[in-house]
Amino acid sequence: MRITTVGLDADDTLWHNESIFRLTQDRFRDLMAAVAAPEVLDERLAAVERRNLALYGYGVKGFTLSLIETAMELTGGEPPGRVVADILAAGREMLGHPVEPLPGVERALADLADSHRLVLITKGDLLHQEQKLAASGLGDHFSAVEIVSEKDERTYETVFARHGTGAEAAAMCGNSLRSDVLPALQAGAWAAHIPYHVTWAHEQAEPPLDHPRFAELASIADLPAWVRSLG
Amino acid sequence: MRITTVGLDADDTLWHNESIFRLTQDRFRDLMAAVAAPEVLDERLAAVERRNLALYGYGVKGFTLSLIETAMELTGGEPPGRVVADILAAGREMLGHPVEPLPGVERALADLADSHRLVLITKGDLLHQEQKLAASGLGDHFSAVEIVSEKDERTYETVFARHGTGAEAAAMCGNSLRSDVLPALQAGAWAAHIPYHVTWAHEQAEPPLDHPRFAELASIADLPAWVRSLG
Repeated sequence: MRITTVGLDADDTLWHNESIFRLTQDRFRDLMAAVAAPEVLDERLAAVERRNLALYGYGVKGFTLSLIETAMELTGGEPPGRVVADILAAGREMLGHPVEPLPGVERALADLADSHRLVLITKGDLLHQEQKLAASGLGDHFSAVEIVSEKDERTYETVFARHGTGAEAAAMCGNSLRSDVLPALQAGAWAAHIPYHVTWAHEQAEPPLDHPRFAELASIADLPAWVRSLG
Repeated sequence: MRITTVGLDADDTLWHNESIFRLTQDRFRDLMAAVAAPEVLDERLAAVERRNLALYGYGVKGFTLSLIETAMELTGGEPPGRVVADILAAGREMLGHPVEPLPGVERALADLADSHRLVLITKGDLLHQEQKLAASGLGDHFSAVEIVSEKDERTYETVFARHGTGAEAAAMCGNSLRSDVLPALQAGAWAAHIPYHVTWAHEQAEPPLDHPRFAELASIADLPAWVRSLG
């Protein structure tokens, strides 16, 4: 069999994530409605997040800190009433948010796990990602879990060498062209893009439509058939 | 050779960490001097950290969020002047703090790496720990790096099975009795405690002085000789 190992992204591939960030961002807009227009808030927040990315990495704690920083910047350090306390509460709620697999995930994983080695490959806060996997009930389908600080070509080479038989015998699947698809292709793996209805600006990229090892799938339900079609 | 693998803790074993947290806590006391006495601040902060530990885990980002939360609690949600902005800045400084190996570390690792497989085993923020290891210049001595969300018996069993020849053929070394020594002994490994001059309250425990596989070392300089004495 040519493909021995299937890598799966977690956030927005196995369960909702970006939509939860968006809900918190909506709440932030409400809290700050008296201070700035929604577009201004979004733009300032995006700039603060970008500036902090190298220091905070990905995840809820860094996002919460960036929300507070944005509130401070836009109010000269004195945000009204309970804004900061409410942001802290929103961050804690995100960390404690229930995790429910997206439609079709459970079945696709159970199907593929019979014939392939499944590896979860995700960015974000270490503890939070472990907790989400445990809460999802999906953990038993995976042979290995890799929580990484960055998803680049090197990451996929290392992970597929460690937990499989190399990138050439692996397929990666996720919702982010930038993190899941392009670097996996560069590493020599196959890659399937399964879009989620919202994408964080930082993760956007052009689909490599002409790449011979790339596929665009409408749903994770199509993943097992695609993996098997590779031989 | 009986011992094939040596596990090493990172924070306060290879480089300063708790002392940097303490400096930030001193700064917090200054910022909040008009609001509460130092003992009150320390006590409230410890309570907030304890409450958040299961959600935030270990590391600078969670600590920064807990500092802000403590400031909000003690001021009815309206801390004076630039307190929150200054806490955010202090957190970013901690994340960007230069990393310098503690005295004797470089030499002890170089010595041991000739004869043993060294594995770094640490808690904390994934990205920040990777950055500290890179900044320390110590990375080349390690065969493997495991950044984990909790250090318990199971952690040591798994890590020493994955990167060595099992816990029975491994020795763990670190400054925390609670995280580095006791669970490693439970897993069947040997364990050496090398005290650091300050210990986070959460990490305190009694030394298992009568345990046959335990040693208390004055300095990491004594580690290679102790490991070799085990056969």
